[in-house]
Amino acid sequence: MVKYPAALLSLIAFLKKLPGVGSKTAERFAFQLLNWPQHQLADLAGHILAIKEKIHPCPECHCLMEGDACGFCDPLKRDASLLCIISSPKDVFTIEETRSYRGLYHVIGGLLSPLEGRSPEHLQLDLLHKRIEARAIKEVIIALDSTIEGDATALYLKEQLKGLRVSRLAFGMPMGSTLDFVDGGTLTRALMGRHSF
Amino acid sequence: MVKYPAALLSLIAFLKKLPGVGSKTAERFAFQLLNWPQHQLADLAGHILAIKEKIHPCPECHCLMEGDACGFCDPLKRDASLLCIISSPKDVFTIEETRSYRGLYHVIGGLLSPLEGRSPEHLQLDLLHKRIEARAIKEVIIALDSTIEGDATALYLKEQLKGLRVSRLAFGMPMGSTLDFVDGGTLTRALMGRHSF
Repeated sequence: MVKYPAALLSLIAFLKKLPGVGSKTAERFAFQLLNWPQHQLADLAGHILAIKEKIHPCPECHCLMEGDACGFCDPLKRDASLLCIISSPKDVFTIEETRSYRGLYHVIGGLLSPLEGRSPEHLQLDLLHKRIEARAIKEVIIALDSTIEGDATALYLKEQLKGLRVSRLAFGMPMGSTLDFVDGGTLTRALMGRHSF
Repeated sequence: MVKYPAALLSLIAFLKKLPGVGSKTAERFAFQLLNWPQHQLADLAGHILAIKEKIHPCPECHCLMEGDACGFCDPLKRDASLLCIISSPKDVFTIEETRSYRGLYHVIGGLLSPLEGRSPEHLQLDLLHKRIEARAIKEVIIALDSTIEGDATALYLKEQLKGLRVSRLAFGMPMGSTLDFVDGGTLTRALMGRHSF
């Protein structure tokens, strides 16, 4: 292949590290960036450099915080008897958007995945235990993905949190779905979780 | 919606300007960047800042060049009797990859598109005419997209280059395609362009 200029190649190599971006997409991004005026490139570069400086994980719940106070740990605004366990700081915003949860959050260090080398130590459960002891948590809600890794991690957490009231998000038909397009696994879980009506 | 931290929002706004990137993808990119170590972020920012400084269009053919000499204008290496007209500097690399063209290139300023406000002045044809006069060009090959805009621009160029030998890339069945999956427009053009066999 005839090589792109070296500066373009190094940029493409970096853009390829973004999730879901392959060679072709990275090339399109790079050529698009070439068309941007220099001040926009400088702004983008500045924002990239600034995110880690401006945003850091809350030392208690590991949600993202800007500044000194974590909005998700504020005891005046949140119901401190509920603790929701999630696997990524992004999930907080997805749950907050529903406006149907006002408790606390706790971000664990990912999902268990032996294939990717993520073992129970990566979950940093000692921090979770300390937090549950320190606060008067009445119920722990496990809000992990409905995947094999999510299921395995949920089962492991259930074992580790014995003695506490532990719940997990409901499984069933998504809103707006029709029976003939719902897959078998979802339908099985929807049948098992049926409620009186 | 519960807002992401401001630094994240400004980065997301910039990432959304990349081609084909919507809100959800930009959010995924931004959260991924948050996981990168700071030295990688600094490298990426450095590459973004550097592309426009290191790469610039060749003053003659408008292909991308790094340094002082344009590899696509070198009279010792290229056949100076052929001139291939393309609409983007990226196309040069696609054509070079085929290793079946050794002539010169000329990048015009995009395709005609009244809807997007691109009129004939944007093509910068005076530069093209000057170049054709200065060099002993025997044939001009129009290698533009097979779209409405590409067709319109090709027709316009043909009018403007009257008196010269002008050709356009062939239209027909793509390699490896089967008749039942080829669309009607392609098949019509393949029939019109049939050759003795």
